[in-house]
Amino acid sequence: MQRLQCNQQRNWDMLMELAQFTDSAQPYTRRCFTPKYLEGREWLRQKMKQLGLEVSLDSGANLIGTLLGTNPELGNIVIGSHSDTVPSGGRFDGIAGVIAGLEIVATLKQQRIRLKHNLQLIDFLSEEPSEWGTSCIGSRAITGNLTQQHLALLHPSTGETLQDAISRMGGNPDHLQIKRDIAASLELHIEQGIQLETEKQNIGIVTGIVGIIRGTVTFTGTANHAGTTPMNLRQDALVASAELIQKVNQLSLQFAEQASGYLVATCGQIFNHPNASNVISGKTSLTFDIRSDQRELMDQVWHYLNEKADEIAAKYDLKVNSNQLTSTYPAHCDSQINQCFTQACEQLGYPAMKMVSGAGHDSAFMAQIAPSSMIFVPSKLGISHNPEEWTSPEQLICGVNTLLYGLLQLDQQL
Amino acid sequence: MQRLQCNQQRNWDMLMELAQFTDSAQPYTRRCFTPKYLEGREWLRQKMKQLGLEVSLDSGANLIGTLLGTNPELGNIVIGSHSDTVPSGGRFDGIAGVIAGLEIVATLKQQRIRLKHNLQLIDFLSEEPSEWGTSCIGSRAITGNLTQQHLALLHPSTGETLQDAISRMGGNPDHLQIKRDIAASLELHIEQGIQLETEKQNIGIVTGIVGIIRGTVTFTGTANHAGTTPMNLRQDALVASAELIQKVNQLSLQFAEQASGYLVATCGQIFNHPNASNVISGKTSLTFDIRSDQRELMDQVWHYLNEKADEIAAKYDLKVNSNQLTSTYPAHCDSQINQCFTQACEQLGYPAMKMVSGAGHDSAFMAQIAPSSMIFVPSKLGISHNPEEWTSPEQLICGVNTLLYGLLQLDQQL
Repeated sequence: MQRLQCNQQRNWDMLMELAQFTDSAQPYTRRCFTPKYLEGREWLRQKMKQLGLEVSLDSGANLIGTLLGTNPELGNIVIGSHSDTVPSGGRFDGIAGVIAGLEIVATLKQQRIRLKHNLQLIDFLSEEPSEWGTSCIGSRAITGNLTQQHLALLHPSTGETLQDAISRMGGNPDHLQIKRDIAASLELHIEQGIQLETEKQNIGIVTGIVGIIRGTVTFTGTANHAGTTPMNLRQDALVASAELIQKVNQLSLQFAEQASGYLVATCGQIFNHPNASNVISGKTSLTFDIRSDQRELMDQVWHYLNEKADEIAAKYDLKVNSNQLTSTYPAHCDSQINQCFTQACEQLGYPAMKMVSGAGHDSAFMAQIAPSSMIFVPSKLGISHNPEEWTSPEQLICGVNTLLYGLLQLDQQL
Repeated sequence: MQRLQCNQQRNWDMLMELAQFTDSAQPYTRRCFTPKYLEGREWLRQKMKQLGLEVSLDSGANLIGTLLGTNPELGNIVIGSHSDTVPSGGRFDGIAGVIAGLEIVATLKQQRIRLKHNLQLIDFLSEEPSEWGTSCIGSRAITGNLTQQHLALLHPSTGETLQDAISRMGGNPDHLQIKRDIAASLELHIEQGIQLETEKQNIGIVTGIVGIIRGTVTFTGTANHAGTTPMNLRQDALVASAELIQKVNQLSLQFAEQASGYLVATCGQIFNHPNASNVISGKTSLTFDIRSDQRELMDQVWHYLNEKADEIAAKYDLKVNSNQLTSTYPAHCDSQINQCFTQACEQLGYPAMKMVSGAGHDSAFMAQIAPSSMIFVPSKLGISHNPEEWTSPEQLICGVNTLLYGLLQLDQQL
C-alpha cells in the first residue's frame, strides 16, 4: 500500500498562484482592507468551493471554509492562518498555512478519507500590524480580544474607524462573539527565524508563543559643545544609553543560556538628540523588546533593566524615565496536539524539534479558547517580511504532511 | 589718577544694538551672506567711521577698520572676531569680540592714547559653518587656506558658488593673498564652555586651539526578527556600537585625567538601521569627534578607537568600516602675547586661568601667519549656539579691559 502523502506540486502551485495577488509596484504586498486583499480572498473562496467546502464570513470577517465530518457534534478542528502581508513582504508568511489547509482537504477528498470532526479552514483577518496599529484582528475578534477601543480606532490618513473597515470586509463587528465550537486549532507557519536551518530540522513543533514586554528608557542629560566641555563635566545621554544596551544584552545572553525558557531581549530602536557630530548627546531614547515563553523571565529582565537604568543615570548625573508600551503574556501550546505532531514526524521520518515561537501569531489568541498548537517549517537564512523570504516546495510539503498526520490522529483522539 | 578702564555700559549697548540685527522669526540669527548680515555690517562700518577708522573690505570680504599708529612701519596689531551667527544662536558668540575692538578704540580716543602700531579691527567673514560646508572663510582667505576647491563649492539649494558669494559680499576672491603685515593678532571670545564658571575665573588665557579628528565607524551585521532570532545567533550592530562608545569614552576619561594635554572625544551622532523596535539592528554608523591641543593624543585615540572597533567586530561577527572626515592640527597661541595678558589680569586684579580652546576659531588660522592668541570670558552654564547664551556686562568688560591692557603692553614690546 502506498503511503499517504500530500501533493507537493499542487501545494506549491496553489501557493504561488495566491502569492501573485500583490501590489505590482512593491511585491509581495497584499495589505488587509485593500482591493488586492479582497481579490486574494475571492480566489480563496473559489478554491474552497471547488473543494466542496461550505464558505462563510464570520462577524470578525474571518473567511471560513467548512468540510463536514461524520460526527459534527464533536466540534470543529480548525486549520487557520492569514492571507494578508506586511508591505514588501514575502510569498510564504501566512499563506503557507492557508494553502496547507486547502492541500489537506484536497488530499482527504482524493483519498476518500472522511473525518469525524468538521474541519474548518480559516483565513484570519489582518494578522499583520494594520494601519490602525493593531494586529491579529480576526483572531482577536473570535476570542473576545477585540475591544470597543480597538473598534473606535481611526485610520491615520483616511479617518475610517476599524469598525467600519471590518464591516467593509464583510464582517459584523456589532455582533462579535467568542467561537465556542472548536475542538482544536492548528496552524502551520514559516519559522521566520534560523533555528530550524541551523539545527538541520524539517519541522518545529511549537511549545509556546512568547509574550512581549516592550518599553522605552529615556536618559536626559545636557546637550553641550563637544569641543569645549571637558570629559569630567559631561552629562552624556548616549554614553549612558550605550552602557544600558550593553548590560541588557549581557544579561539576556546569560539568561538565554542558563534559564530554562526561551528569552530574547533587543534594543532595536534609538533616538538620539540633537544627533550632531559636534554636540554631546542631551537626550537619548531606547526601545527594548523582551520576549519569553515564561512571563517571570520577561519580568526579571524588565526589572533588571530599570534597576540598571537608575544606576547608570546616577553614575552620569542624568534623569531617567521608563515607560512600558506593551505587555502580553506567553501562550502555551497544547501538549496532546504536540504529541500527535511528534508521532506524525516519527511516522513520516522527519527530523523535528520542539521550539518556542518568538513571533506573535493568531494561534496565541486561539490558545485562549481552545487547545491550540503550531508547526513551523524552515525559513532560508531566517529571512522574513522581505521579498527574499523562502521555503522550498520540499520543506513546505513536509509541514503539510505533518499537519495532515497530526490531524488524523487528533480526529481519532478528541 | 583714575585707573584706565573701558566703559561697561557703552560696550554693552553697542553689543545689544548689533545683536538686534537678527532674522526676527528665529532670534538670534544673522547668517553670513544674507541681507540681515549686510545690515549688521553696515552698522559696524558706520560705527568704525564714527570712531575715525579707515574702513575697507579685503579680497576675502573681511571688514577692516584701521586706526593709524605713530609708527605704521611696525605693522598692524589685529583685534578680530566675527559678526555672523549659527541659526538660532546667541547674542555674544563672535560679536563680543568685534564690539570689544570698537570699545577699545573708543577708550583710546577718549583717553587720547595713541598707539605706535596701526590697530586693525577685523570682522572675519563667515566664521560659523556656512551653507557651503566650510567655516572660517574670511580667516582662511587671508592665511592662504581657502583653496580653489573651496571656491568652487556649490550652495546646496541655490547652486551659487562660494566664489560668487564672496564677491557678492564685496570680496575679490580671484585675488586672495596672505596678509603679511600683522605684528600680532588678538581675539576676545566667549568660552562656550563651563570651565571658567566652574573654576570661578574671570578670564581664560588661551594657550592653544584644538585640532580635530572627525570620523565615522560603521558596523554591518544582519537585520533580523527580534523575536525569532536567539541571542546566540545574532549579529547586532547596535550592541557592538554601544560597546565601542563605552570603550572610547572610558579611554578618553583616562587620557583627560592622566595625559599632559587637553583631550575630549565625543560620539554625538548615531544612525541605526532599520531602527525598528522589533528588528535587530543590521547597520549602525557612529561619528566620533576627537579634539586635543596635542596632535599625538588625537592620533592615539583614533588609533585605539579603530583597534577596538576591529576587536568588537570580530567578537560579534560583524563587518566594520572606518572613515576619517576631518583632520586638522592644533594651533599654538603666542607665549609673549599670553605673558602680556597674564600681566594685564594681574594689574586689573582679575582671576585668570590658562586654558585650551576646545572650539575652532579664526585665531587658529591667524596663528599660521602671525603671533596670535585669545582671551575667553565666561559663558553662563556653558550654553552657546543658543538664544540662552549669556555673559554679563561685568564679565564682558573684564575681557575688554584685559584686551586693552594686553594691547598697550604689546604695542610697547613689539
